[in-house]
Amino acid sequence: MNIPDKKAFVATLNMPYCGAKNGERVFGFDRWVARTFLHAIGDPEVRIILWDGVNVADMAPAAAVGMVIHDRGTLLRLLANPLLNFGDDYCAGRIEIEGDLVRFMETVYRSMTCTTRFKRTSDPDAYRRHQPNLNSLSGSRCNIHHHYDIGNDFYRLWLDTEMLYTCAYFPDQHASLETAQVAKMDLVSRKLRLQPGQTVVEAGCGWGAQARHMARHYGVTVKAYNISHEQIVYARQRARAEGLEGQVEYIEDDYRVIKGKYDAFVSVGMLEHVGPDHYQELGAVINRTLTEQGIGLIHTIGQNCARPMSPWFLKRMFPGSYPPTIREMMTIFEPWEFTIVDVENLRLHYGKTCENWLDRFEQNLDRVREMFGDAFIRAWRLYLSGCVANFTIGSLQLFQVVFSRPGNNRIPWTREYCTPSAEIPDGNL
Amino acid sequence: MNIPDKKAFVATLNMPYCGAKNGERVFGFDRWVARTFLHAIGDPEVRIILWDGVNVADMAPAAAVGMVIHDRGTLLRLLANPLLNFGDDYCAGRIEIEGDLVRFMETVYRSMTCTTRFKRTSDPDAYRRHQPNLNSLSGSRCNIHHHYDIGNDFYRLWLDTEMLYTCAYFPDQHASLETAQVAKMDLVSRKLRLQPGQTVVEAGCGWGAQARHMARHYGVTVKAYNISHEQIVYARQRARAEGLEGQVEYIEDDYRVIKGKYDAFVSVGMLEHVGPDHYQELGAVINRTLTEQGIGLIHTIGQNCARPMSPWFLKRMFPGSYPPTIREMMTIFEPWEFTIVDVENLRLHYGKTCENWLDRFEQNLDRVREMFGDAFIRAWRLYLSGCVANFTIGSLQLFQVVFSRPGNNRIPWTREYCTPSAEIPDGNL
Repeated sequence: MNIPDKKAFVATLNMPYCGAKNGERVFGFDRWVARTFLHAIGDPEVRIILWDGVNVADMAPAAAVGMVIHDRGTLLRLLANPLLNFGDDYCAGRIEIEGDLVRFMETVYRSMTCTTRFKRTSDPDAYRRHQPNLNSLSGSRCNIHHHYDIGNDFYRLWLDTEMLYTCAYFPDQHASLETAQVAKMDLVSRKLRLQPGQTVVEAGCGWGAQARHMARHYGVTVKAYNISHEQIVYARQRARAEGLEGQVEYIEDDYRVIKGKYDAFVSVGMLEHVGPDHYQELGAVINRTLTEQGIGLIHTIGQNCARPMSPWFLKRMFPGSYPPTIREMMTIFEPWEFTIVDVENLRLHYGKTCENWLDRFEQNLDRVREMFGDAFIRAWRLYLSGCVANFTIGSLQLFQVVFSRPGNNRIPWTREYCTPSAEIPDGNL
Repeated sequence: MNIPDKKAFVATLNMPYCGAKNGERVFGFDRWVARTFLHAIGDPEVRIILWDGVNVADMAPAAAVGMVIHDRGTLLRLLANPLLNFGDDYCAGRIEIEGDLVRFMETVYRSMTCTTRFKRTSDPDAYRRHQPNLNSLSGSRCNIHHHYDIGNDFYRLWLDTEMLYTCAYFPDQHASLETAQVAKMDLVSRKLRLQPGQTVVEAGCGWGAQARHMARHYGVTVKAYNISHEQIVYARQRARAEGLEGQVEYIEDDYRVIKGKYDAFVSVGMLEHVGPDHYQELGAVINRTLTEQGIGLIHTIGQNCARPMSPWFLKRMFPGSYPPTIREMMTIFEPWEFTIVDVENLRLHYGKTCENWLDRFEQNLDRVREMFGDAFIRAWRLYLSGCVANFTIGSLQLFQVVFSRPGNNRIPWTREYCTPSAEIPDGNL
C-alpha cells in the first residue's frame, strides 16, 4: 500500500506567500470582476478591498467583515473556483480577512445558500463531487493518514486532555470542554445501556477515550478499531498506563474486518469517513457482529440535504469525507431491518466544541508555527472557523442515532437516561 | 364528492356465518393443504384443527395457540390469499382461534417475516400495494370517513376520556391510559417548546384533545384541521363546553389547504393517512406555514423498511393508510432543508396503548354487539390484537420527529424537557 509521506499534507499548504504587489493599478475591470464574484456568492454583507487598499465601490461599506485581495491573479482565481481558491489563497496570504473570520464565513455561507449555484438542493451524487480519493480499503488508509497522522503532539495542543476529536456534549452552555467531552462519552454509554460484563465493539476509536470510558465506568470489555497508526499507538499507551489493558484492545484495522459478536456497536465520528458507497457494507458488519438484544449507536456529522463538501476541505483537510443525510444513513439500517430507536441532533454542541478548539488552537500559535509554519496555521484557522460557522448557521448537523434489532424490547422505556446531570458510574453498577 | 354511506363499512363485515359443516370428511388432501399453508407462512408454532376437530398430524401438538378451520372452502382460500382471507373468514366465524389471539398473531407474524414471500425487504412501491383508494383530496375523504365516522359513541366505549386515538406515553409502565394520554399530549407540547401567545396549526386533530391541551396548559391559540365530520363536531362541542372556543378553532378541511403562519406545526397520527405520494406536498404546506423560528412535530406509525400493509387491513380497516420508513419521511423535510432535531421511537408505548384499547373494547362487547353485531366485534378484535402484536414484535414503529428550519438556534440545548415526570403547566408559563 502506498501511503503518502505524512508531511506531504503540510507541504501542500506551504505555497509561497506572494504578498501585495504594491503599485499594481486597479482598473474598472477589476472592480467589475470583484462585484461579479460577490454576486455569484449571493451578495453577502462583506467589503471587498482590492490591492490598492480601497473598498470596491458600493460594497457594503459598513459591513463588520471584509476580505482583502492582494493581486489580480487571486481575484480571477476566486471567480473560477471560489471555494477551492479562496481556501488556498487565504492560506498563502494572498487573501486576508478584516474582522472576525467566523463571522465572515457565517455571512458568506448564509448568502451562498441563497444562490442558484450553491443553493441547498439534494444532489444524489453529492458525496462523489470534488473527491480526490474515495474510501476503498487502501483509499481509506490514505485519507485517514492525511489528517489524523500529522502528529499527536499537534492535536494535544488544542484537544481536551482525553484527546477527543468529536462533538462534545455540554450539560450546560458554560461547561468546560473537558467536562463536556466526559459528558459526551457518558451520554453515549448510557444510550447504549451498557451493563458490566458486556462486550462492545467500537468502529473508529480515535485516540481511544470512549473505549476507556466505557471499560472504566461501565465494566465492559471493548475491542476498538482504527486505521490511524499514530492514534492506535497513543491509545494503547494510555490504556496500559491506566491499567485498562485487560479490558480494552485497540486493533489497527479497518471496520470492514471486524469479527465476533458484541452486545453493543458504537462508532463516534467515523461515518464521515466511510462514504455512502460503503454504508451497506457497514450495515452488514453491524448485522454480523451485533447480538440479538444488542444496541448500536452511530454519532456522525450530517446534513439536511445531500450537498457536496467544499473542494478545498476535501483536498486539503479531509479527503474522502462526507457528512450524510438521515436518508442516506438509512442505507446502513434498512437492509437488515434495524430499528431507529432514537436520533438526537447535537449541532449546537458541535458549534461550541469547535469554538473551544479554535480558542485553544489560537492560544498555541507559537508551538504550531514551530511545528508546521504559517500557511498551516492559516489552513487550520480557516478549517476550524468554517466548522464553527457551519454548525452555527445550520449547514452541518450532528446526529447521534441509536438502533437495535426489530424484536429487541430491551430498548429504553423513557428518556430518563438522558438527564444531563446524570452521575457517571464508578464501574460497579 | 361521493362519500359512501357510513354504515357501508360495517355491512361489508357482516358476511353470513357458515359455521362448521358437520359430517364433511377430512381427506389426506386437506391435511396436505393445511401443511402447505403453514409452510408458506414460515411454519409457526401453531396447531391447525380441521372441521373433523382433529389437529393436523405433527402440527405443533403442544403449541399454546391454534386455529380451527371450519370447512374446505376456507382452507383453500387461506392458501390463495392468506392475509385477506384469514381476516375475512375469521370475522365470519369460519376460522376460530384457540388460545390468546394476540399471542397467535405474534407467533404467526414472527414466522412470516422469515419466509421468502413475506420477508422484510424494502419495496419501493409498498405503499401502493393492495390499496383500494389512494389519497387524493376526495380519496382521503372517503378513506377517513370509512374508519373515523362510524360513530363517536363507539369510540367513546374504549378510548380514554379525552378521546385520543393515537399512541399514548406511559411515564411508567403501570400508568393508566388516561394518565398516559395526557402525558403524551404534554410531551408533544414540550417538544414544541410552546410559549404563551404563540400560534399553532394542527394537521389531523382527531377529536381535538391535543389542541385543547396546548391551548389550556400552554396559552397558545390553535387552528386544528380534520376531514372527519363526526370528529370535528365532537371537538367543537368539547371546546365550547370547556371555554376554549376563543383559543381553538376546528376547521373541517384537508391539511393541503392550511393557510397562515404559525410558531408550531403539529400532526399526531395523520401521516399514516397521507401516503408517500403526498409527502412533498405536505412538506410544502409546512414550509409555507411555519415561521422562521418555528418548531414542528410529526407523530406517526412507521416501519423499519418499506413493506405493504395487509390487504385485509387496507380493505376493511384503514384504506389509503401506510406507515412510512424514516427514509420515506425525509421526502417531507429534505426539499425545504428542514433539520431533524429529534426522533423518538415509542413503539412499546403503542403496544401498551393498544393493549389498553383491546381490554376496554372487550369489556364493552354487549354495547358494541347492539351497535354493529358479531362480525364487527370479530373484525375489531382482530385489528386491535394485530396492532398489539405488531408493536410488540417490532413490525411497526411509532416515530415522533421534531424538526425546525436550518438556521433556527432556539432548538433545545439538552433533553431536560423529556423528563417523564414533568409537571403539566397551568397555562400561565
